[in-house]
Amino acid sequence: MARSSDRRRFLKLAGASAVACAAASPGYALAAGRSEPAAAAPFSLGMASYTFRLFPVDQAIEMTKRLGLTHICLKDFHLKLDATPDVIAATVAKVKAAGLDLYAGGVIYMKTEAEVDRAFAYAKAAGMRMIIGVPTYDLLPYTNRKVQEYDIPVAIHNHGPDNPLFPTPQSAYERIASLDRRLGLCMDVGHTQRAGVAPAESAEKYFDRLFDVHIKDVSAPTAQGRTVEIGRGVIDIPRLLKTLTRLKFAGTLALEYEKDEKDPLPGSAESIGYLRGVIAALA
Amino acid sequence: MARSSDRRRFLKLAGASAVACAAASPGYALAAGRSEPAAAAPFSLGMASYTFRLFPVDQAIEMTKRLGLTHICLKDFHLKLDATPDVIAATVAKVKAAGLDLYAGGVIYMKTEAEVDRAFAYAKAAGMRMIIGVPTYDLLPYTNRKVQEYDIPVAIHNHGPDNPLFPTPQSAYERIASLDRRLGLCMDVGHTQRAGVAPAESAEKYFDRLFDVHIKDVSAPTAQGRTVEIGRGVIDIPRLLKTLTRLKFAGTLALEYEKDEKDPLPGSAESIGYLRGVIAALA
Repeated sequence: MARSSDRRRFLKLAGASAVACAAASPGYALAAGRSEPAAAAPFSLGMASYTFRLFPVDQAIEMTKRLGLTHICLKDFHLKLDATPDVIAATVAKVKAAGLDLYAGGVIYMKTEAEVDRAFAYAKAAGMRMIIGVPTYDLLPYTNRKVQEYDIPVAIHNHGPDNPLFPTPQSAYERIASLDRRLGLCMDVGHTQRAGVAPAESAEKYFDRLFDVHIKDVSAPTAQGRTVEIGRGVIDIPRLLKTLTRLKFAGTLALEYEKDEKDPLPGSAESIGYLRGVIAALA
Repeated sequence: MARSSDRRRFLKLAGASAVACAAASPGYALAAGRSEPAAAAPFSLGMASYTFRLFPVDQAIEMTKRLGLTHICLKDFHLKLDATPDVIAATVAKVKAAGLDLYAGGVIYMKTEAEVDRAFAYAKAAGMRMIIGVPTYDLLPYTNRKVQEYDIPVAIHNHGPDNPLFPTPQSAYERIASLDRRLGLCMDVGHTQRAGVAPAESAEKYFDRLFDVHIKDVSAPTAQGRTVEIGRGVIDIPRLLKTLTRLKFAGTLALEYEKDEKDPLPGSAESIGYLRGVIAALA
C-alpha cells in the first residue's frame, strides 16, 4: 500500500468508508487551497507554530503571514490545550482573519485517556482537521477509537534516536498499520535523519499513511544533529521534495525551525525560501 | 565572444595581456574562495550592502554573516566615497575580521572626471577588486584610461526602463565593447527584467563582459515592477542560474534587496534561501 496507485485502489475498494479515508489521506489538504509559492508542487508549505514558541499568537500569525504561508499548525503555546471555548473561538477567528488555514494542532503529547479526550475535544472545538500527536503506545487502541468517534485523523510525530517513543516513521507505522487508516504519520524529517534514516526513503515506504511533514534541516545525521536553516544541513531536501512530488503528496510541509528561538524569523525565511527554490527548480 | 569557450580562446590568443584580462573575467572572484552554500555552483553568493542602507556598517556586516554569505559589495552608505584613509582602513579591517571578502564597491555614480578619479582611489585604498559603477556616457573614454592605469575593472550597472543611462545590459555592452576588456557589466536582473529583457538571455549574450550580477526579483516585467523576495516575483531565477552555471560564471551574485528597508533581514534571508534551493536542486 506504499504507492499512490495502491492507495487509490484501496479507496475504490473500500467503498463507503472511502470518504472518511480520503479525509485522512494526504490529499485532503487540497480542499482548503494551496499556498501560492508552492503552486508547482502538489503539497502546501506551512508553519508549525512551535517555531514561534516564545512569541504570542498574534506575532506567530503575523510572521507566518509575512513568509507568504497559508497553512498553520498551532502548538499549545499559542492555543492552550485547556483553553476555554471563548479563547479557542477568538484564536481561531484571528487565524482565519489572517487568511491562514488552521489545518492541525500539535505536537500534542498524550499520556492518559483524559489527555486523549482533551486533544480530540480541543481539535474539534478549533476546527482542526488533524491532530499531530504522540500518544503512548498503550493508548493507541484508545486513540484509535477516538479517531473513529470524532473522524479526526491523528498523525503520529516521530522524535529521533534520543526518544524511545516513536523514534522513526517506521516505528510509528508498524504500530498503526493494523489500526484505522485515519491513524498516520507526521514525519519529522530532522528527527528521522538524526536516526540515520533518509526522509525520502521513509516518505516512499510509508506513503500510504503519510499525513503531514515537519520540515527542517539538521547539522548531522546522528543524535548530535541540531536544527539549522534548511539548506545548511545534511538532509537531501531536493531528493525529499522530488519524492513527495512524484508521489503526489497533497498534505502540508510545515516548517519547524527550532534554532534562534528568540529571533526565528530570518532563519525561517531562509528555510522557506530554500524550499520554494527547490520546488521552482524541480518544476 | 559571448561563449566561455570563445573567452578561453581569446585569453589564450591574447598572450601577455591574458593575465590582466583574466583578472577582469568572471573567473577572478574564485581566487578569494567561494561561499560554502553555493558550492554546487561555479559562482558565489554575496550581498550588495545597499540592501542594508539604513543600518550602520557593523550591522550590515553582521546581517551578511548571519546569512552565511562570504562576499560583500559595499555601498557608500557604509564606506563614504570621501572617507579618510583611516576610516577606509578601519572599515576594511572590520569586513575582513568578519570573514567577508570585500570584492567590490558600488554602485558608484560618476558625473565628472574628479568623481572617476575619486572612485578609483577609493577602490584601490579599500582593496576592492572591482568598481560597480555608472559613469556618464561621455566619461567612458576617461574611465577606460583609469581602468588601465589602476588595473581595476569597472562593471557597469544597468538601471531599467525609467533611467536613460544604461537601461539594459545591452545598452552598456554596446558602449564598452570596443574599450578595454576590464570594462564590463554588473547586470541588475531586476532592472533588466523591468526593461522587458530576460536576464538569462542578457547573461548569455553579453557573457564575455559579465563581471557581476545584482540579483533580486521584481513584481512585474515592466517599469512598474518593484523588488520582492526572490521567488515571489516574475523573474525566471532557475533559468538564470542554470544559464550562469552552464556558462561557468565564476563571479558573484550579490543580493540587492530593495524592499523592507527598515527590516531587510527576513526578505534577504528568504531570497538567499531561494537561490540556494535552486542551486541545490540543479546540482
